[in-house]
Amino acid sequence: MKIRSALISISDKKEINNLLKVLSKYKIKLISSGGTFKKIKSLGYSCFEVSNYTNFPEILDGRVKTLHPKIHSGILFKRNKKSHKKILKKLNFEGIDLVITNFYPFQKTIDTTKVHEKIIENIDIGGPTLVRSAAKNYNDVVVITKISQYKKLINELNTYNGGTSLKFRLRMSREAFGETASYDAKIYNYFNSISNQSIPNKFIFEADLLEKLRYGENPHQTGAIYSNKESLKLTKLQGKDLSYNNYNDIFACLNLGKTLPKNKGTIIVKHANPSGVSMQTNHLRSYLSALNCDPISAFGGIVACNYKLNLQVAKEISKNYYEVIIANGFDKKVFKLFKTKKNLRLVDSSNFKLKNNQKILSGLNSLLMQSSDNFFFSKNNFKTVSKIKPSKKLMDQVIFSFNVCRSAKSNAIVITQDFKTLGIGSGQPSRIDSCKIAIEKMKKFNQFNYNEPLVAASDAFFPFIDGIEKLVQAGVTTIVQPYGSIRDKEIIKFADDMGIILIFSKTRHFNH
Amino acid sequence: MKIRSALISISDKKEINNLLKVLSKYKIKLISSGGTFKKIKSLGYSCFEVSNYTNFPEILDGRVKTLHPKIHSGILFKRNKKSHKKILKKLNFEGIDLVITNFYPFQKTIDTTKVHEKIIENIDIGGPTLVRSAAKNYNDVVVITKISQYKKLINELNTYNGGTSLKFRLRMSREAFGETASYDAKIYNYFNSISNQSIPNKFIFEADLLEKLRYGENPHQTGAIYSNKESLKLTKLQGKDLSYNNYNDIFACLNLGKTLPKNKGTIIVKHANPSGVSMQTNHLRSYLSALNCDPISAFGGIVACNYKLNLQVAKEISKNYYEVIIANGFDKKVFKLFKTKKNLRLVDSSNFKLKNNQKILSGLNSLLMQSSDNFFFSKNNFKTVSKIKPSKKLMDQVIFSFNVCRSAKSNAIVITQDFKTLGIGSGQPSRIDSCKIAIEKMKKFNQFNYNEPLVAASDAFFPFIDGIEKLVQAGVTTIVQPYGSIRDKEIIKFADDMGIILIFSKTRHFNH
Repeated sequence: MKIRSALISISDKKEINNLLKVLSKYKIKLISSGGTFKKIKSLGYSCFEVSNYTNFPEILDGRVKTLHPKIHSGILFKRNKKSHKKILKKLNFEGIDLVITNFYPFQKTIDTTKVHEKIIENIDIGGPTLVRSAAKNYNDVVVITKISQYKKLINELNTYNGGTSLKFRLRMSREAFGETASYDAKIYNYFNSISNQSIPNKFIFEADLLEKLRYGENPHQTGAIYSNKESLKLTKLQGKDLSYNNYNDIFACLNLGKTLPKNKGTIIVKHANPSGVSMQTNHLRSYLSALNCDPISAFGGIVACNYKLNLQVAKEISKNYYEVIIANGFDKKVFKLFKTKKNLRLVDSSNFKLKNNQKILSGLNSLLMQSSDNFFFSKNNFKTVSKIKPSKKLMDQVIFSFNVCRSAKSNAIVITQDFKTLGIGSGQPSRIDSCKIAIEKMKKFNQFNYNEPLVAASDAFFPFIDGIEKLVQAGVTTIVQPYGSIRDKEIIKFADDMGIILIFSKTRHFNH
Repeated sequence: MKIRSALISISDKKEINNLLKVLSKYKIKLISSGGTFKKIKSLGYSCFEVSNYTNFPEILDGRVKTLHPKIHSGILFKRNKKSHKKILKKLNFEGIDLVITNFYPFQKTIDTTKVHEKIIENIDIGGPTLVRSAAKNYNDVVVITKISQYKKLINELNTYNGGTSLKFRLRMSREAFGETASYDAKIYNYFNSISNQSIPNKFIFEADLLEKLRYGENPHQTGAIYSNKESLKLTKLQGKDLSYNNYNDIFACLNLGKTLPKNKGTIIVKHANPSGVSMQTNHLRSYLSALNCDPISAFGGIVACNYKLNLQVAKEISKNYYEVIIANGFDKKVFKLFKTKKNLRLVDSSNFKLKNNQKILSGLNSLLMQSSDNFFFSKNNFKTVSKIKPSKKLMDQVIFSFNVCRSAKSNAIVITQDFKTLGIGSGQPSRIDSCKIAIEKMKKFNQFNYNEPLVAASDAFFPFIDGIEKLVQAGVTTIVQPYGSIRDKEIIKFADDMGIILIFSKTRHFNH
């Protein structure tokens, strides 16, 4: 079945010339309006104007053009149904076998203006209706909604001598409904945002495939990464494709790295948990401190530097096996160094910015949504409750400890000294076990100084004294934890009796 | 500004009578077609038929009814713009100030039939177009898309003497775009499913708010649960509202519980990790075994029974503090027992069925998607590689161990005996640390028998012999782990030298 006539109504007129050439080759009658009509004529093709075709003027500044029964009957009638053909003949209506449309650029408009009137004017009514009519009737009609589909259409027309296959029409129909759904999702989400609906009654998430991943968390699971931004603002400069687990670890790294003071943090992550973190203006020391916290766990992990990676640090990094190195830029010499390690991924995160996004986690038949937990800590988030008060420098160390603790899976206990982690206990059902793990790691791998402050952070309050007691016995002299236990008073008294500093945070930071 | 005329085109005609009464009170002219027209007339109201109104017949079995410039100009013209008013007057068109529409029941159709033709016929074209026109022009027009909005409209009409507020119209417009977006998302997802597109180029998720949660993982985060099913098939029979963390734990419980043989599994979960699991036909023993694995961690956790909870077991459970008890039904006497514990949540999961859903996890500006990992294990998933082979009974224990291990956060090591966990090591960046934790817990809390098989499971392969060595030293006699290390041969040799049973699983089960 050959295509006899096409309705073209496009907002973005790129690459239309090639397509018109092929439509003309197969003598397909063109119908169009407004800017598209002018464009087609200017390219030298003959074309019917919609208003002449329907015998109805284009009115309301273009708000009503194609919303006409002659157009929609021509699209929607079933070509194999006698009664449909009969009524079309009676009304002297013709079939429209091809619809080529892209919509008013709603997303682009909200990206470039805050003028609500202008945004509303960019809600396309006619376009989506044409597309939905054609997509519904894919059995007889082709619908083209993206410039990237032009080549495929040309290919079909050439293969089927001016016709198309049902398979192709079905695929175009499927993609068309993807376009109309995501177009309206964007409008809906815009309306939600101007109405401050952070938890709307209906949640619609639309995103484009960025990359099909080799597999999910495990080889028997499929995996993919989607985004409704054009890119993640992460640039892979070298190495194998990133895996699902790489991405998961990278997000854990950046969530922490981008909340540390700039240009001095090194983070090593394994299985979505930090295995070592350090913050030093000397980058070599920063990296080595992060590594030495738990060099065994670091093996096969990923390293994130919130500074530009130089050759000296890179040489040190290259002595260990990592899957990914993330940095805010790389010195040129670093690429030479890693040239032979072809599998190693180098990822530039300079342009990456942390946003307050919604956190989404699928449950069973459902989806848990929450606001993100990546605000920047300041001393106002904390209150010293012990008699002894921390110095300003110590308070900075407390904030560092607590920040690392927030990024570890709950229950989490983190012991630090001088802006480097000594022991990280994570992912335990019991808080006291996390204390034990942190203490054991501190003693096993690290050199530290009992005469300098040893700071421990807990992501939630201690329900009993036992955990704190263990930490103090191990040499910890400053503890930061959220308040909220019915034993808070008892715990403050214990801290004062022991002569340690106890600081309560205003916020809890479970992270599962 | 009073509403003068309304276009009504509804597929679901419930509760329209009350609304018509109010529209009639304010002398609002009604325009309608087909079944809605008949319904309005039958209720005794006067109404214009669309085809008389437009002077164009309803054709193509109802495919083209309201797609007419008289209708859409009437909706879309700007009431405060002279040129718009002028052209309407010239064309002798009138304003349509209210659109009441609900769509052909696409979702209901795919729920009740597999006949593709019938499904396609239930893609509404006219309805969404009316809604989108009216929603775009919310400044002048009210759009009603859900029966649940009728009462609010009546309220507005009565408050504003036949008019509505701009705030209300904006809200209705927002909700309208939610309806059109989710309607097309359902169509798109249907097309994806019939085309076997498990990783489509565009991912559109639409779900309805089930419950606004008190907060997210932490009190400073907002939280909510959404689903595109009508319910989660979980029934809360008693207790406080479920929290974000409760839901997360419940999902962890059910993911494991529903893959254990029916009517004998007890699972205790804390911070999304199992703290104890047991599978026994004697339910009391099943619960006590799960508890005794780590009674300290169990405190404040949630218990899931994949059996009907009777009084005897409930009495034992009531001796410990839990946030939630899930069971496949509860004996009546159990409710009496727990009547005084008003905060304790009792959740019935009898109707809950595990499905192969997509797993979604939000990254930063992105979304990671993978297929679920909840298939049922059988002996075909395993291969014994040691000289000594397991008995059938032991193989069942191996499957139990490995199944529990899959549900713990990576890296995970689980030691079991006779279908009960003795030690669970989870959430560690280093596998050997998980071994140590599992062994320590086994020795600390449990009574077990060195003469009976001690089975250890690992969610991924051991990269070195050290982990296995530690387990064997602790008394483990059977080990199950995925294959894949370059040292697999060495590990098999070690197992044979030690005289233990070593079983390789075909699948890895990272779970972060």
